[in-house]
Amino acid sequence: MTIAEKIRTIASAARQAAIALAKLPTPAKNELLGNMAMALINNAPHLIEENRRDLEAGEKKGLSSAMLDRLMLNEVRIKAMADGLREVAALPDPVGEVTRMWKRPNELMVGKMRIPLGVIGIIYEARPNVTADAAALCLKAGNAVILRGGSEAIYSNLAIARILGGEIEKAGLPAAALSVIPFTEREAVLEMLRQEESIDLIIPRGGESLIRFVVEHSKIPVIKHYKGVCHVFVDASAEFTMAERIVVNGKTQRPGVCNALETLLIHKDIAETFIPRISETLGNLQVELRGDDCFRQFNPAATPATEEDWHAEYLDLILACRVVDDLDEAVAHINRYGSLHTEAIVTSDYAAAQRFIREVNSSTVLVNASTRFADGNQLGLGAEIGISTTKLHSFGPMGLEDLTTTKFIVYGDGQIRQ
Amino acid sequence: MTIAEKIRTIASAARQAAIALAKLPTPAKNELLGNMAMALINNAPHLIEENRRDLEAGEKKGLSSAMLDRLMLNEVRIKAMADGLREVAALPDPVGEVTRMWKRPNELMVGKMRIPLGVIGIIYEARPNVTADAAALCLKAGNAVILRGGSEAIYSNLAIARILGGEIEKAGLPAAALSVIPFTEREAVLEMLRQEESIDLIIPRGGESLIRFVVEHSKIPVIKHYKGVCHVFVDASAEFTMAERIVVNGKTQRPGVCNALETLLIHKDIAETFIPRISETLGNLQVELRGDDCFRQFNPAATPATEEDWHAEYLDLILACRVVDDLDEAVAHINRYGSLHTEAIVTSDYAAAQRFIREVNSSTVLVNASTRFADGNQLGLGAEIGISTTKLHSFGPMGLEDLTTTKFIVYGDGQIRQ
Repeated sequence: MTIAEKIRTIASAARQAAIALAKLPTPAKNELLGNMAMALINNAPHLIEENRRDLEAGEKKGLSSAMLDRLMLNEVRIKAMADGLREVAALPDPVGEVTRMWKRPNELMVGKMRIPLGVIGIIYEARPNVTADAAALCLKAGNAVILRGGSEAIYSNLAIARILGGEIEKAGLPAAALSVIPFTEREAVLEMLRQEESIDLIIPRGGESLIRFVVEHSKIPVIKHYKGVCHVFVDASAEFTMAERIVVNGKTQRPGVCNALETLLIHKDIAETFIPRISETLGNLQVELRGDDCFRQFNPAATPATEEDWHAEYLDLILACRVVDDLDEAVAHINRYGSLHTEAIVTSDYAAAQRFIREVNSSTVLVNASTRFADGNQLGLGAEIGISTTKLHSFGPMGLEDLTTTKFIVYGDGQIRQ
Repeated sequence: MTIAEKIRTIASAARQAAIALAKLPTPAKNELLGNMAMALINNAPHLIEENRRDLEAGEKKGLSSAMLDRLMLNEVRIKAMADGLREVAALPDPVGEVTRMWKRPNELMVGKMRIPLGVIGIIYEARPNVTADAAALCLKAGNAVILRGGSEAIYSNLAIARILGGEIEKAGLPAAALSVIPFTEREAVLEMLRQEESIDLIIPRGGESLIRFVVEHSKIPVIKHYKGVCHVFVDASAEFTMAERIVVNGKTQRPGVCNALETLLIHKDIAETFIPRISETLGNLQVELRGDDCFRQFNPAATPATEEDWHAEYLDLILACRVVDDLDEAVAHINRYGSLHTEAIVTSDYAAAQRFIREVNSSTVLVNASTRFADGNQLGLGAEIGISTTKLHSFGPMGLEDLTTTKFIVYGDGQIRQ
């Protein structure tokens, strides 16, 4: 069999396995996830051994020490993986939930019931913990899953899949419920992205170039998000202490992530008082400020901002700063330069808060809270499988529910259509 | 400007117009739809004149009389279009609805709010009433809309767009809220399908070849459904009168539509009694029966069914019939040959009804009711913009809500992430 043929075999076996998974009762799914957690712990020595093969190959290839660290598994990290599986087991099962039910004039009872999507493909990069994490979320939502990790982690990923797969077979379920693509060739991903008859959804997890590659070649719907250019608008009525806390948290708590703050918008009425204060605070934290003319009037030390800065996702201790006339101008700036990811207003004005919530159509819109809360765990979804900044299917951080769809269910008493 | 440039201009103007539409209050949207209805009636003579140009061109091109009839507008049909607009105005506005809200341990209030998708492209065939109908649904859900109708109806569609567009401008809204592509060239559709930066969703309405063409060329997500191979399973415990009524209604009430019955599955325990009875009834209604061996044992006059029959969407007075051992075999048959459209069970057995509802994952699953109810209006969605048999975004008949997505909204009191 060629690689392409093997990929097609894996995909169509997953489609079959999905039928069994969709029917699996909640306790059976939770028990399976618990057993998988136990098996990871019990097989830690084997896993560490296989991981060493990846690490050695990585060193030879000259991977950076940061990359090697992301790749590395030890007992603590394996324990964390197992805990992750147990946390997913503890989440409520979305499958079978009837989200609404209503009665028609002809007495038909019509409802919408959550069902699994079917087969989910995850394409990701180095970190091998994604293998266990993503598999758990897909299985809990009743889906079969096909994983394609980075070539750097191939031995680790295959070992994790063997361990988890052992538990799947012990539970009497089809092995194809969970597959790791055993090929590192690019051809394998390309063929996977063509299996639209067998795979319902592709979730790429990684950098922008991985995501663009997947979107470019996929015949299957892709949940994607390229970047997060997140804004905080400090309104005229903002409490300065709160505004400062939210700006500092957004920019400095973890600058390298997609929900970090990238552009600060300041109402002109407080420019004179707020700009010197926030400039000093951020300066002390080594944040480089790039401001428009008005911002630089009150902080001449700031670098002049160019058009590029309004589009920038720095992922670094750099902040673009602009003074705006009012809420309308702030919203217009966000509509023009934003990435539909996350925006916050800091305000004491009730009407401004409500207008911001209504008029900013990014996937997460906050009042008086840090942009860093735009995350599945932080918002209370229980776990995050990914994030979407396109509006179809899901918009924003995605949890278990986003790995399901709904079907119409109808209870009748013999009704026919006239 | 080339055609491609003009399409790009239309699409990016629609993207801008969508910002204004998203903010439009419900009463303003309803008033606009009411005014559009009035304008159609008032401009009926002009519309009929323009329609005549299409009809004359169609006659020259040798369109069938059925096609010409579908194309034709008269006062009654224009009145029906206007009534359609008023019905959409009367539907509840999905935009702004907060579908859920919860509190986090840190007191953040997190909710999901419905917002418009943005810009929707509709690609359809001959019937000019789709122009008014689809425009109304998209606008009511706060979306800008770009319509691309069939070349046979170009004068009618442009006239309808001019009339509706006049009301949009009178309301002080951007004209680009509603556009009809004024080109009949194939290049225009292809360019439209490439505007993924400006258009959020494409809904094709028409035959399978149109839909396949759109899916093949679109860079934008497409809501699609190719065909409806709908099943009725008559369980051992079914009331024969009810079963007969549901089968007859499914097959004969309107055989040419996607929710018509195509395959009948019969429990083996009632084969001997039910097959002669249903065969006689359907025979009297000129339905051709194609049965498996077991079916033909009790109705030797039936044509032998081949593998092809189980896949067939006849859209005609033909019915494939098969005897199955039990519910499991019925479900397995549906999983194998079904099109994820609509399936019904007729049963008196509570457990069988519940298992069928749970285990059949088609987009509409019914107990003791005709498959013909799989329709947005019949299920109570108020109006139908289309139907999806793929699970992403929407599954099954789609109403106004399916033209929206949800964003996360977060109300805080200064919370930051630790």
